[in-house]
Amino acid sequence: MKAMVYHGANNIRFEEKPRPGIIDPTDAVVKIVKTTICGTDLGIWKGKNPEVADGRILGHEGVGIVEEVGSAVKNIKVGDKVIISCVSKCCTCDNCKKQLYSHCRNGGWILGYMIDGTQAEYVRTPYADNSLIPLPASVNDEVALLLSDALPTAHEIGVQYGDVKPGDTVFIAGAGPVGMSALLTAQLYSPAALVVCDMDENRLKMAKALGATHVINPSSGNVEKQVFDIVGEDGVDCAIEAVGIPATWDMCQEIVKPGGHIAVVGVHGQPVDFKLEKLWIKNLAITTGLVNSNTTEMLLKAISTSSVDYTKMITHRFKFSELEEAYDVFKHASENQAMKVVLTAE
Amino acid sequence: MKAMVYHGANNIRFEEKPRPGIIDPTDAVVKIVKTTICGTDLGIWKGKNPEVADGRILGHEGVGIVEEVGSAVKNIKVGDKVIISCVSKCCTCDNCKKQLYSHCRNGGWILGYMIDGTQAEYVRTPYADNSLIPLPASVNDEVALLLSDALPTAHEIGVQYGDVKPGDTVFIAGAGPVGMSALLTAQLYSPAALVVCDMDENRLKMAKALGATHVINPSSGNVEKQVFDIVGEDGVDCAIEAVGIPATWDMCQEIVKPGGHIAVVGVHGQPVDFKLEKLWIKNLAITTGLVNSNTTEMLLKAISTSSVDYTKMITHRFKFSELEEAYDVFKHASENQAMKVVLTAE
Amino acid sequence: MKAMVYHGANNIRFEEKPRPGIIDPTDAVVKIVKTTICGTDLGIWKGKNPEVADGRILGHEGVGIVEEVGSAVKNIKVGDKVIISCVSKCCTCDNCKKQLYSHCRNGGWILGYMIDGTQAEYVRTPYADNSLIPLPASVNDEVALLLSDALPTAHEIGVQYGDVKPGDTVFIAGAGPVGMSALLTAQLYSPAALVVCDMDENRLKMAKALGATHVINPSSGNVEKQVFDIVGEDGVDCAIEAVGIPATWDMCQEIVKPGGHIAVVGVHGQPVDFKLEKLWIKNLAITTGLVNSNTTEMLLKAISTSSVDYTKMITHRFKFSELEEAYDVFKHASENQAMKVVLTAE
Amino acid sequence: MKAMVYHGANNIRFEEKPRPGIIDPTDAVVKIVKTTICGTDLGIWKGKNPEVADGRILGHEGVGIVEEVGSAVKNIKVGDKVIISCVSKCCTCDNCKKQLYSHCRNGGWILGYMIDGTQAEYVRTPYADNSLIPLPASVNDEVALLLSDALPTAHEIGVQYGDVKPGDTVFIAGAGPVGMSALLTAQLYSPAALVVCDMDENRLKMAKALGATHVINPSSGNVEKQVFDIVGEDGVDCAIEAVGIPATWDMCQEIVKPGGHIAVVGVHGQPVDFKLEKLWIKNLAITTGLVNSNTTEMLLKAISTSSVDYTKMITHRFKFSELEEAYDVFKHASENQAMKVVLTAE
Repeated sequence: MKAMVYHGANNIRFEEKPRPGIIDPTDAVVKIVKTTICGTDLGIWKGKNPEVADGRILGHEGVGIVEEVGSAVKNIKVGDKVIISCVSKCCTCDNCKKQLYSHCRNGGWILGYMIDGTQAEYVRTPYADNSLIPLPASVNDEVALLLSDALPTAHEIGVQYGDVKPGDTVFIAGAGPVGMSALLTAQLYSPAALVVCDMDENRLKMAKALGATHVINPSSGNVEKQVFDIVGEDGVDCAIEAVGIPATWDMCQEIVKPGGHIAVVGVHGQPVDFKLEKLWIKNLAITTGLVNSNTTEMLLKAISTSSVDYTKMITHRFKFSELEEAYDVFKHASENQAMKVVLTAE
Repeated sequence: MKAMVYHGANNIRFEEKPRPGIIDPTDAVVKIVKTTICGTDLGIWKGKNPEVADGRILGHEGVGIVEEVGSAVKNIKVGDKVIISCVSKCCTCDNCKKQLYSHCRNGGWILGYMIDGTQAEYVRTPYADNSLIPLPASVNDEVALLLSDALPTAHEIGVQYGDVKPGDTVFIAGAGPVGMSALLTAQLYSPAALVVCDMDENRLKMAKALGATHVINPSSGNVEKQVFDIVGEDGVDCAIEAVGIPATWDMCQEIVKPGGHIAVVGVHGQPVDFKLEKLWIKNLAITTGLVNSNTTEMLLKAISTSSVDYTKMITHRFKFSELEEAYDVFKHASENQAMKVVLTAE
Repeated sequence: MKAMVYHGANNIRFEEKPRPGIIDPTDAVVKIVKTTICGTDLGIWKGKNPEVADGRILGHEGVGIVEEVGSAVKNIKVGDKVIISCVSKCCTCDNCKKQLYSHCRNGGWILGYMIDGTQAEYVRTPYADNSLIPLPASVNDEVALLLSDALPTAHEIGVQYGDVKPGDTVFIAGAGPVGMSALLTAQLYSPAALVVCDMDENRLKMAKALGATHVINPSSGNVEKQVFDIVGEDGVDCAIEAVGIPATWDMCQEIVKPGGHIAVVGVHGQPVDFKLEKLWIKNLAITTGLVNSNTTEMLLKAISTSSVDYTKMITHRFKFSELEEAYDVFKHASENQAMKVVLTAE
Repeated sequence: MKAMVYHGANNIRFEEKPRPGIIDPTDAVVKIVKTTICGTDLGIWKGKNPEVADGRILGHEGVGIVEEVGSAVKNIKVGDKVIISCVSKCCTCDNCKKQLYSHCRNGGWILGYMIDGTQAEYVRTPYADNSLIPLPASVNDEVALLLSDALPTAHEIGVQYGDVKPGDTVFIAGAGPVGMSALLTAQLYSPAALVVCDMDENRLKMAKALGATHVINPSSGNVEKQVFDIVGEDGVDCAIEAVGIPATWDMCQEIVKPGGHIAVVGVHGQPVDFKLEKLWIKNLAITTGLVNSNTTEMLLKAISTSSVDYTKMITHRFKFSELEEAYDVFKHASENQAMKVVLTAE
């Protein structure tokens, strides 16, 4: 079969690989119908994760048809259309028992990282009963694909950890796929203001179309001042950091109100300066984390009544055989006005 | 001034009363702009509350302009346009310190019940700083009026106590003003199904217009069966009882799923049969209560971004001088297709 | 091997049965070290559960040594000393994903009920990774045995659902094994008053020894009045119903304060009268349920620092071969001053 | 009357001041029975708070007898023995309505800071109904004094924000009065391990006497390694930072487990380095804050059944006239083996 394979920093190749089979009795093999590329995949490509083995198939998002199941698989059946969760969960370790599936002792984020992933015609998925979500016929495949990673990550680590409630004011730093997913899933809780900040005017335009009440481009002047002009000088109830750099962390710690929340969703590569001399007194809650995928089913159900069209996040559509071109487009997302790119099996 | 006054069972009169003044330093006097009639007012009229004193002015809902404030009032100023909360809260007793304002030792629901109410040209409101909510210019007066009682009651005792979450299935027994308010405020949390049950086809039609995904008329056959057909045989995540009779309680206890919630919002006049022999094993949470009005400000903010027009709940509009006629219409709500009737000062 | 076997109402026999083996790859077989008898076992004996099959081995509590594990078992190893949870959990069904293990689609309470149980020399336990809890060497076997059912049931369905917090006043109706376990585990949260009610003076004496601040014998006069004399006329923060009859339900609904909790732990055989005409206004939370065993590990750790000796609950100790005698003693618990009886393998 | 008065950095004097009277109708005047000195008072003395006015009476902790009440005071009466909360709360502003009393728009921490404080024979206390807590005869005056600030600060900002639960492992950085209070109040929730770290052997000895399961002196070697040896290499469920310097923050961020909590209680004077590059993935909750005093009554009730003698925290007792000597002892706390010093009116 064809797959996108990692061969060390700056070296990925779309090449022939053997089709995977069942290894453990709790495995399934899924024929990929749709897959996509995550910012993390670009990071691996660029060599940020030297722990990834040469020969590893990339990708941790996908929708597909179950082709084969192991002997211990009970709920998932051959022929089921499923969402492949980016997080594999054994559901028996101490962390899983606390629903901290992100830190599963036997799984977690391993697809396209520690084991072969979804940018392939077929993928082996461990703990199939826990990690595959059957897809009702009524759900659009593209929305389903966003439920592999982007939407639950933003919802759990941004919106839920950030405790977004009806009437809240919310600031989202970064309008990439995760920030945009935070914008979408925050609306499930009816906040009063959703302020999105990004340097890319095209992304801000999309944010407006997807429900942002206000957008801010840092190039237009001091972000903090603009936020205070919108929500009042106390600041916001919840600041969601969805970029992963010190500058956006700084924005968040400047604009959160006493008693408020900072939810860090961004993947950070360096330490940040935490102004405890100003913030010790502010009764803040600051959270970090990797997705647990414990709200994937909840989102699947909740989205069914949403008035917002989630598929607007998908800007580019390719055939699976065009995976290299899709990578190229996504790598230069800004100039291509790309948000999520979808690959469809032929 | 003119006011609607109680003189014992089945005897209320729209008559002349002296204009109220400040008694305690924490009081305000409010000139009523809009008021309305609650089912509870009808109950008092019918003699269900013999504890109400002869001569009492009725009404506990209203929007008005602050006319006068006591010497200890700090936040509310003369000239402010305010929502009058149906619950008066001292904020210093033990129950208030737990935000159980409904059971305030010095207040609670007293307006139009233990002290003179809002169906008058002027009303004295105790604990003005805590019990009046300043109204932003952007908020519609009629929506504001619904925030005196109907919306927070349904939201706090129905939706919040019932723990409605994104993707949940919700059953609402009764499409009167409180059931309809539950339907509206449940949508702030993005449930997947909102099933409304009532015997009045006109109300079911309004429920559909206000966001119900399904409606059931008991005259069309077994309610339980119809609910299971919609949500599956496990039943609903949350059943909101918004009538106050044994029959609707019974529906709720039949259709709630294991791990689900029954939120009793109805005012009950007799005991009900609680089938513990079937339900002890079901891991249910059953709640009751009077509104605390601790989410009035939250709702005021959240509604600002709602796509649903809350004023559709208002079916009849009268001048204040037509208060007797309004009572007559509301008393025969079904034949008049009445939901909420609004009285406006001239 | 020897086991206690059900042969229809009023007919249980201690007899020879074949030793169980692995059926599913997620099973284990455990050699019983200690087991005990639950009130539910007496109920089955008396014919309250005609759904139990003839030939079924009774018992759902036990501590033992793992003798054999299925091919899919990952965490549990042969030779491990384990607590056998009374609840078997697949951890992959929708209810398990919500930690509602009591309503596991593939398990739940099945041991000694739908499948053979622990009153035997060996038992097959499904979903071994999820349903067996490895026992640290430091924990007393008898305390461990109480963690199979009595302590987690009382903790989860009584204390946690009842939201017991530091400084609370708590009423416990019934000082049997579950009421006594509620008394013990409530102390983990430092309530200010723990009032235990029972008609058996001997049990009240034990309750005092195990931490009750007050005890009430209904024979000494009106229970409600006595409770109000102790905690004030508002009533208690939390009432735990641990008997399962209308009379104790009634006590609880009479003495709970506004904003309080009634946690029903008792197994009820008939409906109760729920005084909604008085309670609709009281902002109560009433809960029911079967144990989820999701706090067994928490309790195992928390008890390690307790100053109370949990083994005082164990009143009688027998050899496994004396199981019939143990049943006889437990059946006449009151006259034998029995609370928990322990059977130990020879 | 005599009082301890601030006259700029390094200049406090025990001198004659006029006795305070009622200013606002919600005020009370309290005759001090017992007061104490807080680390914050030392900070003001050393000039860390140049915003404090010359002539200000210091102190925000005290137990006393109500001498006079304003006309709007309802619950507090002349002659009541009361705890003076360090936080004054209007209970009517937006932050108070969220129980964020620490950020009360009209109060907060103002005693001995923005208005005259409790290190005097008499003190005027604003919002007496909300800020004074009547003291039952059964409660020891010295325990009551600890409820002004130290115990609720540690309980709310350390233990509650840190989500300490039964069976948890807890690390407390710093065994000063607040760290020691965290040690005491954490025990209300029955953690399995309470590891206290301090450089003062005498304080560690006291920590052991007050319930620490383990103590660590950083001089004995790597703190992180010692913690991992005790609780396992994942780290602790909750790390409470109770010093306020980068070194203790660093300890906390090193030893908290995935899914754990860092509760910052220390008053920080400079930024810290937040290792987001390691912690973004750890699903942490980090909290900061000033006490809300919303658990003072809860603690008052919960402590009544505690088996630990809270007064062991009090190491020195003086007459009120010896206030200068008390300051001197507390300023050199380590060499004097001082924890809390109590001043008693003669």
